[in-house]
Amino acid sequence: MKIAELSARSGRSIPTIKFYLREGLLPSGDRTAANQAQYGEAHLRRLQLITTLIEVGGLPLSRVRAVVEAIDDDTLTTHQVVGRAHHALGCRGGEPSSSPELSRAERDVDAFLEAMGWRVSAEAPARRELAGALVSLRQLGRPGDTASFERYAAVAFELAAWELSRTSLSGSRSEAVEAVVTGTIVFETALVALRRLAQEHHATEPQGNKPQ
Amino acid sequence: MKIAELSARSGRSIPTIKFYLREGLLPSGDRTAANQAQYGEAHLRRLQLITTLIEVGGLPLSRVRAVVEAIDDDTLTTHQVVGRAHHALGCRGGEPSSSPELSRAERDVDAFLEAMGWRVSAEAPARRELAGALVSLRQLGRPGDTASFERYAAVAFELAAWELSRTSLSGSRSEAVEAVVTGTIVFETALVALRRLAQEHHATEPQGNKPQ
Repeated sequence: MKIAELSARSGRSIPTIKFYLREGLLPSGDRTAANQAQYGEAHLRRLQLITTLIEVGGLPLSRVRAVVEAIDDDTLTTHQVVGRAHHALGCRGGEPSSSPELSRAERDVDAFLEAMGWRVSAEAPARRELAGALVSLRQLGRPGDTASFERYAAVAFELAAWELSRTSLSGSRSEAVEAVVTGTIVFETALVALRRLAQEHHATEPQGNKPQ
Repeated sequence: MKIAELSARSGRSIPTIKFYLREGLLPSGDRTAANQAQYGEAHLRRLQLITTLIEVGGLPLSRVRAVVEAIDDDTLTTHQVVGRAHHALGCRGGEPSSSPELSRAERDVDAFLEAMGWRVSAEAPARRELAGALVSLRQLGRPGDTASFERYAAVAFELAAWELSRTSLSGSRSEAVEAVVTGTIVFETALVALRRLAQEHHATEPQGNKPQ
């Protein structure tokens, strides 16, 4: 397809597409004339991935590039690409600042994941995020052990398995990896939004009104 | 307690505490001498709330102020405070840009929440976030109806109810509201981190390795 059709099908403007081409986020099309190129379904998919990373994930271009480069690196396994993509997605909230409490919480999180038998790279930024949440619980005087995460871990484990089972991994490698990465972002956003909406709903229940 | 003890117990430095006092995020202590004030448990709790909002939630000061002001506004119900706090927390990812597709998705999300009977304010930013995720699913050619959110909604509903049942609402109003708000942020962070870790784990399963 020509760039005009790529624009129409993706909902992105031609200048935006040209910008992504110049930035190397989108691979060049096949030149068919001095000033014309043909684009395929892979371009459309990649464009949708970039849009999701920016609009739903809120990622800056530098991180979008890191995700795209990981997907295009054929020497990485799917597992490694998912790890890299998560790394590029970074912490959604604040980055917990270093402290002895954080170091202790990080060791506790490592032991927790080890005990559950989860295969996760040692550098996964989510380890640090989880440790940051643990530090907060401890400072707040709430049940500050990793056991308070067990229910969330069980829910997360089931959801992740269910999502992967619904993700079509039948196409090309990059197609499969793109599907996993977009699923991470889109369903994470949906889950967070729904949890907040449910909280607001439950806060109207008699129990939630008690303190008034 | 004196400011030195407040600092020791909260883990925040004295200059940081003085900054929050000047900014009005932390109420003044009781003056006991020209240059000395006494602080209580309420100050400690408020300081922990501010720390959680900034370090775990990644909120800028202006939004921390909005949360604190909502908590201190006695004319608001708990339900309203939770709504305001969520509003201040804002979108964790990107802000979906306006488009006819987003408007359609927002109407679909409204109908979905209505059908489930969730009591949520019309301005809840999570509605727009959820609509943004729906637009992405549609652009990606994935099952782009709200039914694809049903499982997440069920999980979110149960988790939110469980969290509220574990949140002590026995103290003062501000104590209860602070507990709900910190729970929103801390457990949201934990849930998101655990889901990413579980995804990385599942991506090593035979199915996840298929495309290689």
